[in-house]
Amino acid sequence: MNKRAVVLTSGGLDSCVALAIAAEEHDLALLHVNYGQRTEQRELKAFHALADHFCVEDRLVVSMEHLKTIGGSSLTNPSIPLPKTDLRRSGIPSSYVPFRNANMLSVAVSWAEVLKAQAIIVGAVEEDSSGYPDCRREFFDAFEHAIETGTDGNTHISIVTPIIRFSKAQIVQEGLGLNAPFALTWSCYKNEDVACGECDSCALRLRGFQIAGVEDPIPYATRPNYASA
Amino acid sequence: MNKRAVVLTSGGLDSCVALAIAAEEHDLALLHVNYGQRTEQRELKAFHALADHFCVEDRLVVSMEHLKTIGGSSLTNPSIPLPKTDLRRSGIPSSYVPFRNANMLSVAVSWAEVLKAQAIIVGAVEEDSSGYPDCRREFFDAFEHAIETGTDGNTHISIVTPIIRFSKAQIVQEGLGLNAPFALTWSCYKNEDVACGECDSCALRLRGFQIAGVEDPIPYATRPNYASA
Repeated sequence: MNKRAVVLTSGGLDSCVALAIAAEEHDLALLHVNYGQRTEQRELKAFHALADHFCVEDRLVVSMEHLKTIGGSSLTNPSIPLPKTDLRRSGIPSSYVPFRNANMLSVAVSWAEVLKAQAIIVGAVEEDSSGYPDCRREFFDAFEHAIETGTDGNTHISIVTPIIRFSKAQIVQEGLGLNAPFALTWSCYKNEDVACGECDSCALRLRGFQIAGVEDPIPYATRPNYASA
Repeated sequence: MNKRAVVLTSGGLDSCVALAIAAEEHDLALLHVNYGQRTEQRELKAFHALADHFCVEDRLVVSMEHLKTIGGSSLTNPSIPLPKTDLRRSGIPSSYVPFRNANMLSVAVSWAEVLKAQAIIVGAVEEDSSGYPDCRREFFDAFEHAIETGTDGNTHISIVTPIIRFSKAQIVQEGLGLNAPFALTWSCYKNEDVACGECDSCALRLRGFQIAGVEDPIPYATRPNYASA
């Protein structure tokens, strides 16, 4: 029997590839979180499209409106402008949603404990990516220890981050090798119809496809060349 | 200036005493979580009564309906019977809500990071209590480390558990010394009008008052003597 795993599935490029990797060896249950982000509806649509593609019945969609209420991020607070990308900027970007991944992982653990799943799979990426502190493996290691101490002694759940050391170009290559359905995904922070091509998330994604030498199949309002950025 | 702290305030005896201790030295922000538990409305009423008593304006009430959806607990699933208490039983009771405290702490950290609070105060009790794995100091230590690794480098939030080593009788004594408003609290897992006196939570509470030699001011349907249980 395959191991059972809960996959955090935002509906973006990274979670799509993590899902394609996970589908090779696990029985899947997919978790999606709405947290009042600007493109909530579009991401939810991508989530269900991916779940359909991978024929996963077990789906849990959770609403975390409190992350919008709490604010502190340009992703959930319309009065904080969403900046145009600057891939050379360092530090934590304004789109950081405070401790978002811990909120999502906690739900995933509650569900995994009831499902008796042994793994939570997360498409987090540490380098060449967001600068979010809760996307580092160090954080996932610490959270894994919190799971071990905070659940039933018979419960052992690991946090698997299969692409955490990949560059975006490597993620694209990995996805191609697994026939990951890139066309079903959504990454733009700003728009829900045609990706803007100018926010951090679009820029990182486009750069990954450009370096990999592959056309990104989703529609963009503009496709700047980020390959040398 | 006082340190700013977020207090997890369920509205029960333990959180009331933790709140009374916290109020001595902190500017407070109070977090309450509805998670589809049987006595949700009564606990919310107790929360606001306590917040009024301590004159705290900053209140955040969060709905975690997903914990009910996920289930796995007699507290949130009406088809799992809520057992009569057996204070000599060991192991994890059916009222355990999988990884509930991590879900609540994650929200508290998100809020604390935006408020620039330095502490999260939790009225968790390790001994003479619930048998919940996520009420042990070992878990809070692990979670504190997850906070340190998963937030901005300038953010340092400690999890303070002022009554974690107390017995229920000591909690009652501590609360008396601080004039904690016991009459405003609610602990029963089963009823919302008159406490049943027979669930685990009522039994632990009544035993605490009985050993402390003090009358519990809230109404009970029955008050068995648990002092020697």
